[in-house]
Amino acid sequence: MFEFEITARDAGSGARNGRFHTPHGALETPVFAPVGTQATVKALRPADLHELGATLVLSNTYHLYLRPGDELIRDLGGLHQFMQWPGPILTDSGGFQVFSLSATRKIDADGVTFQSHLDGSRHRFTPERSIAIQENLGADVIMAFDECPPPTDYEYVKQSLTRTHPWLERGLAAKTRPDQALFGIVQGGVFPDLREASARFMMALDLPGYAIGGLAVGETKAQMTAVLDVLHPILPQQKPRYLMGVGAPEDLVNGVLRGVDIFDCVLPTRLARHNSAFVLGGRMNLRNAQYERDAAPIAADCACYTCQHFSRAYLRHLVKANEILGHILLTTHNVHFLLDLMRQIRQAIRAGQFRAFADDFLQHYEVNQSGID
Amino acid sequence: MFEFEITARDAGSGARNGRFHTPHGALETPVFAPVGTQATVKALRPADLHELGATLVLSNTYHLYLRPGDELIRDLGGLHQFMQWPGPILTDSGGFQVFSLSATRKIDADGVTFQSHLDGSRHRFTPERSIAIQENLGADVIMAFDECPPPTDYEYVKQSLTRTHPWLERGLAAKTRPDQALFGIVQGGVFPDLREASARFMMALDLPGYAIGGLAVGETKAQMTAVLDVLHPILPQQKPRYLMGVGAPEDLVNGVLRGVDIFDCVLPTRLARHNSAFVLGGRMNLRNAQYERDAAPIAADCACYTCQHFSRAYLRHLVKANEILGHILLTTHNVHFLLDLMRQIRQAIRAGQFRAFADDFLQHYEVNQSGID
Repeated sequence: MFEFEITARDAGSGARNGRFHTPHGALETPVFAPVGTQATVKALRPADLHELGATLVLSNTYHLYLRPGDELIRDLGGLHQFMQWPGPILTDSGGFQVFSLSATRKIDADGVTFQSHLDGSRHRFTPERSIAIQENLGADVIMAFDECPPPTDYEYVKQSLTRTHPWLERGLAAKTRPDQALFGIVQGGVFPDLREASARFMMALDLPGYAIGGLAVGETKAQMTAVLDVLHPILPQQKPRYLMGVGAPEDLVNGVLRGVDIFDCVLPTRLARHNSAFVLGGRMNLRNAQYERDAAPIAADCACYTCQHFSRAYLRHLVKANEILGHILLTTHNVHFLLDLMRQIRQAIRAGQFRAFADDFLQHYEVNQSGID
Repeated sequence: MFEFEITARDAGSGARNGRFHTPHGALETPVFAPVGTQATVKALRPADLHELGATLVLSNTYHLYLRPGDELIRDLGGLHQFMQWPGPILTDSGGFQVFSLSATRKIDADGVTFQSHLDGSRHRFTPERSIAIQENLGADVIMAFDECPPPTDYEYVKQSLTRTHPWLERGLAAKTRPDQALFGIVQGGVFPDLREASARFMMALDLPGYAIGGLAVGETKAQMTAVLDVLHPILPQQKPRYLMGVGAPEDLVNGVLRGVDIFDCVLPTRLARHNSAFVLGGRMNLRNAQYERDAAPIAADCACYTCQHFSRAYLRHLVKANEILGHILLTTHNVHFLLDLMRQIRQAIRAGQFRAFADDFLQHYEVNQSGID
């Protein structure tokens, strides 16, 4: 279980094709996981996700613990059964949400006490509690409880590792289910020495996979790729690498260039709720008046259901009228855009042409970086 | 075009099977039309509607005139192209919405001046304007502009017919497109003599179909069926009959018993937005605490996507968490429920067993009438 086969390597970069085996099927990597925060990828049915080619779905421990409760989900057969996603699921540790969403929180060496963003009730997560909750949820891949520190405060980040590292050991000790793979989350902010120290600490534990946390939280794109450049030669080749919370198209390509195998992000679903669609090199806000009478689809060469059927004018009408179908169609397009990009990436690696593919793709984003809404 | 073939008659009631030919395909009747008020049946894609077995969709002239505008829809190829519904579409006249939705309205012999419910802007509908808008939209079946009066005020209803009847003649005179069938709307409130007078006036014009308007607007169920009993022997057998705005399951069966061929209603989509699902004999509110840990589907014998996959507990979680998927799944179930009922009705008529089917079906509603939320 949790074998990771590398099936092809790109000669010109760190990119690789792999197959990561889980109790709910094998994932072809590099893979992007749409996020189902509350046990649903917003506005899509599992059947739609499957048709779009999704294989891995992420769900959030913090949210499901608060509502409907991890014990309820366990009693109803676990998260796969509850949300009817038959493929692999990954849950995060709850750490990031505790630090980013909860109303107040107090961190100590043992764990974090926080207030629910839903009703202000008080709760406490420890490394052991996070594992117990994730065992109740029953995802295939689970995460060690960590602190996600402000990435550019050296002293804070260094101090934070003295919590995150023992928490990983406690999580490992607490884990009981053999059908779940526990990944550690490499932290260390934007600092090469701290990232290396964190990676080496975790590698000594010989984990089934390594997550890279604390990025896409406010640092620059250059800082993000610099961290990936530091970790790429350090992390073991034979284990899957998961870059958490990253889903901008150019970041996916940059991550794959640096050996990343797994990504997740709310971006495609969140953009859809803000009326925006991915297009090559940027985004299109369908609320804009310029699309009022535009008979063209979002993208003429896009094979998604939305682009195969509907005009920008119709999509603009739907978002102006606040129609649910607007969310559905934009989410469909955005998730398709990223999943199709990953298919192209896997294909380019297999064909030994990933460096050229990446160069070609990234130039669209360099030109239009400033045009992103 | 617009031929109506009667393919079977029920010996024990007014029910009949028919085939109503339109420029966008033939409708097997009796048929229920889901409502796509703003050029979308809320929370469903056209592909989903098709899979559910929908054949006819209704859209609202008042709403589309205000937003995005009927001329915009015409310029983009008409409503079928705009909303990507390849099958038959029916539009109402705008009359009912002007009387029920607009902020202020002033009626005169020539038409109605009203304020938009969206922005308070002033507009005027006349019989000719309603036809012109509906010609821009391009539905297969269009409606004559009418007044929908308070159904139990005899003097008002009688007076109202002196507007609605000339408005029908003006609409007929204004109509230019041969690929649209214009139905008149029989009014007359709950009064047998006025209903008969209205029907006879319209029958003299030999229309391609007759709508029954002004019901399901506050009168009792007994008053509704009494009106249908009055009209059933009067309206011509060889023309389709359309009972407007009716979609409660028991009303569909009662309508078919009395010779109705076409129905439409927002009920399945509106109930879904209020977290309710049709069940035999009543409704189930999925927000109720009693479903918190209920592993059963809404209905064990239901073949819809929702019931084939999801527990009441999961649906309750979705509606509590305000997830779009909750709307999607409840809408799917509710639309399926009515479309499947219509399939069963058509089958029972073909099999010569509709009276028994109706008696059996309606007894569930007599018992549980008081239990409806």
